[in-house]
Amino acid sequence: MTKVAAIILAAGHGTRMRSETPKVLHEVAHLPMLGHCLRTARTLGAENVSVVIGAGGEKVRKALETLDADAGVAVQDPPQGTGDAVTAALPLLEGFEGHVLVLYGDTPLITADTLGRLLAELDQGAEVAVLGFEPEDPGPYGRLITDESGALLRIVEAKDASPEELAVRLSNSGVMAMTSRALREHLPRITNDNAKGEYYLTDLVGLAGEAGGKLAALKGDEDEVLGVNNRVELAEAERLWQARARRSFMEEGVTLRDPDTVYFAYDTEIGTDCVIGQNVVFGPGVKLEPGVTVKPFSHLEGATMREGSDAGPFARLRPGADLGKGAHVGNFVEIKKSVLGEGVKVGHLTYLGDATIGARTNIGAGTITCNYDGFNKSKTEVGEDAFIGSNTMLVAPISVGKGAFTGSGSVITKNVTADALAVARGKQFEKAGWANSFRKKNNKGS
Amino acid sequence: MTKVAAIILAAGHGTRMRSETPKVLHEVAHLPMLGHCLRTARTLGAENVSVVIGAGGEKVRKALETLDADAGVAVQDPPQGTGDAVTAALPLLEGFEGHVLVLYGDTPLITADTLGRLLAELDQGAEVAVLGFEPEDPGPYGRLITDESGALLRIVEAKDASPEELAVRLSNSGVMAMTSRALREHLPRITNDNAKGEYYLTDLVGLAGEAGGKLAALKGDEDEVLGVNNRVELAEAERLWQARARRSFMEEGVTLRDPDTVYFAYDTEIGTDCVIGQNVVFGPGVKLEPGVTVKPFSHLEGATMREGSDAGPFARLRPGADLGKGAHVGNFVEIKKSVLGEGVKVGHLTYLGDATIGARTNIGAGTITCNYDGFNKSKTEVGEDAFIGSNTMLVAPISVGKGAFTGSGSVITKNVTADALAVARGKQFEKAGWANSFRKKNNKGS
Amino acid sequence: MTKVAAIILAAGHGTRMRSETPKVLHEVAHLPMLGHCLRTARTLGAENVSVVIGAGGEKVRKALETLDADAGVAVQDPPQGTGDAVTAALPLLEGFEGHVLVLYGDTPLITADTLGRLLAELDQGAEVAVLGFEPEDPGPYGRLITDESGALLRIVEAKDASPEELAVRLSNSGVMAMTSRALREHLPRITNDNAKGEYYLTDLVGLAGEAGGKLAALKGDEDEVLGVNNRVELAEAERLWQARARRSFMEEGVTLRDPDTVYFAYDTEIGTDCVIGQNVVFGPGVKLEPGVTVKPFSHLEGATMREGSDAGPFARLRPGADLGKGAHVGNFVEIKKSVLGEGVKVGHLTYLGDATIGARTNIGAGTITCNYDGFNKSKTEVGEDAFIGSNTMLVAPISVGKGAFTGSGSVITKNVTADALAVARGKQFEKAGWANSFRKKNNKGS
Repeated sequence: MTKVAAIILAAGHGTRMRSETPKVLHEVAHLPMLGHCLRTARTLGAENVSVVIGAGGEKVRKALETLDADAGVAVQDPPQGTGDAVTAALPLLEGFEGHVLVLYGDTPLITADTLGRLLAELDQGAEVAVLGFEPEDPGPYGRLITDESGALLRIVEAKDASPEELAVRLSNSGVMAMTSRALREHLPRITNDNAKGEYYLTDLVGLAGEAGGKLAALKGDEDEVLGVNNRVELAEAERLWQARARRSFMEEGVTLRDPDTVYFAYDTEIGTDCVIGQNVVFGPGVKLEPGVTVKPFSHLEGATMREGSDAGPFARLRPGADLGKGAHVGNFVEIKKSVLGEGVKVGHLTYLGDATIGARTNIGAGTITCNYDGFNKSKTEVGEDAFIGSNTMLVAPISVGKGAFTGSGSVITKNVTADALAVARGKQFEKAGWANSFRKKNNKGS
Repeated sequence: MTKVAAIILAAGHGTRMRSETPKVLHEVAHLPMLGHCLRTARTLGAENVSVVIGAGGEKVRKALETLDADAGVAVQDPPQGTGDAVTAALPLLEGFEGHVLVLYGDTPLITADTLGRLLAELDQGAEVAVLGFEPEDPGPYGRLITDESGALLRIVEAKDASPEELAVRLSNSGVMAMTSRALREHLPRITNDNAKGEYYLTDLVGLAGEAGGKLAALKGDEDEVLGVNNRVELAEAERLWQARARRSFMEEGVTLRDPDTVYFAYDTEIGTDCVIGQNVVFGPGVKLEPGVTVKPFSHLEGATMREGSDAGPFARLRPGADLGKGAHVGNFVEIKKSVLGEGVKVGHLTYLGDATIGARTNIGAGTITCNYDGFNKSKTEVGEDAFIGSNTMLVAPISVGKGAFTGSGSVITKNVTADALAVARGKQFEKAGWANSFRKKNNKGS
Repeated sequence: MTKVAAIILAAGHGTRMRSETPKVLHEVAHLPMLGHCLRTARTLGAENVSVVIGAGGEKVRKALETLDADAGVAVQDPPQGTGDAVTAALPLLEGFEGHVLVLYGDTPLITADTLGRLLAELDQGAEVAVLGFEPEDPGPYGRLITDESGALLRIVEAKDASPEELAVRLSNSGVMAMTSRALREHLPRITNDNAKGEYYLTDLVGLAGEAGGKLAALKGDEDEVLGVNNRVELAEAERLWQARARRSFMEEGVTLRDPDTVYFAYDTEIGTDCVIGQNVVFGPGVKLEPGVTVKPFSHLEGATMREGSDAGPFARLRPGADLGKGAHVGNFVEIKKSVLGEGVKVGHLTYLGDATIGARTNIGAGTITCNYDGFNKSKTEVGEDAFIGSNTMLVAPISVGKGAFTGSGSVITKNVTADALAVARGKQFEKAGWANSFRKKNNKGS
């Protein structure tokens, strides 16, 4: 198979975002927009990936360490158009022979499918393949002028277009693929002889055509080429991404009570016959095995739920939460970095952090693992078949043996032996009539 | 009045649901789709109701015990079309004389109003009345060909239709009503002489017409005849059902801050001048009396809220929760199987289960009824005008007398006398300077 | 600048609301609809504002004390049309010379911008300026008939309109501005010589025109003139208001993960680079400084969050909550009337009420300020750099000194010295094998 390279343009300032965060680092589905482009390029098998950043792009460079450490970074300074940006990346493609994709860091919704179709055009002999779309009102966009067979003849800017050409709705998205040969041959020939004095990558299409190269145009979905320039468009990109994910999960056999209120992350995994209630937010790193139920108003992040387990309503699963088969996590419960064995029940008002809970153990309402002493985090271990009474404080590091009970309201600071009952609480006493006197005293003034 | 029977076809496999649950048992508004059809049939006064299940329909048969124990069950095995399914049900109609409705277990939104209109056609002399609808694109649907008076002449399948007939938009929904006489006379005459070798109930219309019977066609709402074949359509059915319920409640004098975020169950009851905040989920069995306020992010199920009571935000009312007049349930509070008297206040972070709370009693933050010892559930009784201090554990079975107080942080294991103060906690002592040493020790390494 | 007066008609019964609350007091964005009109009028600099209430309008009069104590109140009894309502307000305009706006208490979405355009027409010589809109179906509305220059010629009621006039889509919204001179001259000349026997303010337009006065018509947005007559329309007004606010915040540099699920109040203030998760409800009086993060499922009201602080998911900030710079409030936490210093952390399952927490202090999970004894509310003070152990009850009035620690599960009733450790809990003891016997006993029967 022909090798693939991708150049992702990410130098724009994004002033309309009104943000200190560079535009391409704003997130869609918990992944920076740039990350979406990187993942899509890698999905296509791109082995040479370059990101073009601007003068102030150090935050982007830093983010790339996490997003895609293998991606190359080129700096475009000063910015002089898309052609100039690609030129900045050329040294990173030294020695590369194959297909080159040009993507945009603020256009995160483009799919591998669509890009694959562009690459297929190159496989079939095109030198440049351009992605078009048909907007409701193509007004300001460059038009893709094709012949009857659909082959691309040229791209005409709206201001230079004839009335006939203006009637064409297929518009230039800017996304394109080209052979490395065409790129190296024609890119240096682009001039900045235009009103803005910039180098337009679009001109490469004309140059390749004039030189007798075959050009292709494909129609893509308008949603895929949505570019994000402000936070209204960012919200729109998120909306479109979520709609796509929701439909896909439903088609795979997941019930979403109200799909519009379930928010997935870019890497969410869900098995069949899971049922997701209304208003559920998935942060990154969540995996649900088949038959899991997530009830309304739940917030999951970095958590695993095994077969038949359930959580919510009002459950918060944080990174490292691992619910065993059939385990139950109820309302107002937070689980962090804790492994719950099969059939464990944590019904109400509980915080488990840095804990391991044995199978079938019941954690009473109001239980708290006191895992932090102001300096260190410590671990809690509870054995199988144990019963932690309501409002037990488990002062870590601590272990409660298999089958042991703790009395309600106990502060457990010493390990509990298996099958024992541990209690730590005050003795109950009564002051008879106290309430009457108290009321009298307080009602005196009124 | 003429008697009514209903035959509900529920034998489809529903493979596109990708589920181990039979299609007709997937829920809309917390009731299986089949349950909606059953309720609608009963609303119309149907006394003879049959459900046709398929070979693997044992889960459906089991569910019917709860959904409608009086419904008859017929098995269609193997499946050979809708006509064959109705034939399977015929023995259950033995001796029945009257109107017969044919419904579909995966078409849950059909209303009693619409079906009533079909029955009215029979009352006025029609032998068969067919429900049509006008889809945006009637492409594949059979067309209902009517004369100028609107009487049905015949049903033409799309593939057999002339261009003129294809231009007709009134399409066959499959829902129909017929006299028991017409059913018995024409059903046996349907053949499977077609491409798929199936018996189509639709053919009965033609047969009745040829025999001189009067045929009627009615136009229904497209939404009502939405058939559910996958989870995308299931979500759509839920959406349509909810939209209908929301509008109806608003018209009856209920304020919904954002109707699109309030989810009702099939049996929710709400009085006038109730105000429901954003993001409220009603499970089955909820009843709100007039003047109730439910604040955002609340989840109610099997609960009763009496006049002027309020709950939320972040309230969870579970089955058996009964809030008295003017009672208040605040945030992060769970109430289960508990009766709260008039004016009771449960403001924060509390779990009440299997409890009875007397009028005007105040339940402090963090209170928990320890109602489960790992084996048995026990009851808590708190008298009127009592004051349960914050973080009181009420270890059931337990009773706190009228007007009594409990001290904050007490584990109450013995009954508390009326008007007494009960306390059970450790004595406070101080280790001077301990924190300084502790900090020093922990900071040594850093 | 010419002085401005506003007359707000608020006498309608609003029976279709099916409510005991007068229509104009139903809320949009946590402000009664009437309040929106009042705020808009004041924004325009109106110094003379009158509200016309009906016979049963005492609740409205009462509400005005809070909404706008300077507004005058006129009573229209019995109701005899809009002209009659304005007549009732005339005495309140005694001595006023300038521009007069007529607004409607059930039309809360009209903007100061649009009204400013009406006033500008008066500045340019018009005697009356009428706000029109172009509904999808103008059917029943009066039509604004204009000449080629756009000047208003007359208003024609739909029933009196010629086919040509019916084809005009510009419809009368009822909102208008006029000079005080025109008002005083023409209002008394309106008659009730019509089918309903009412005085229509609309007639003033014709009278002014006949007298040679210049008339103006402006086209406004249909959404702005939405009148609310039932709760479906109330929900629609809320929806439109929220859509406007969401867009405006995003344009100003606020990220809304899903704008459709964030609900603002009329007075919400949010700085740039704040990130608001899905499902966040703002009650009145919230102010977020720049760089604040609010995670999903949070409910804020009367709260201030300072730079870089964060709250949620599942956070409830109530009136008087003030989070210092970089402070963190986590899940299932309620803060009321409490000031949190810089960098304070309140992570889990906590209630802080009437408290002051010093900078950098850590509040353990399950902490509760016991601020209410059934009669009085008392205060809690915690110094800087303190560490409140999990499940500490702070029985107010109480103070915990700078740098002090409290042991987990302690009920703190006496002040804690700086840098000390305070503990109040029972001693742990164990009953070996108790759990085994307990299990045996309980399993006997089964």
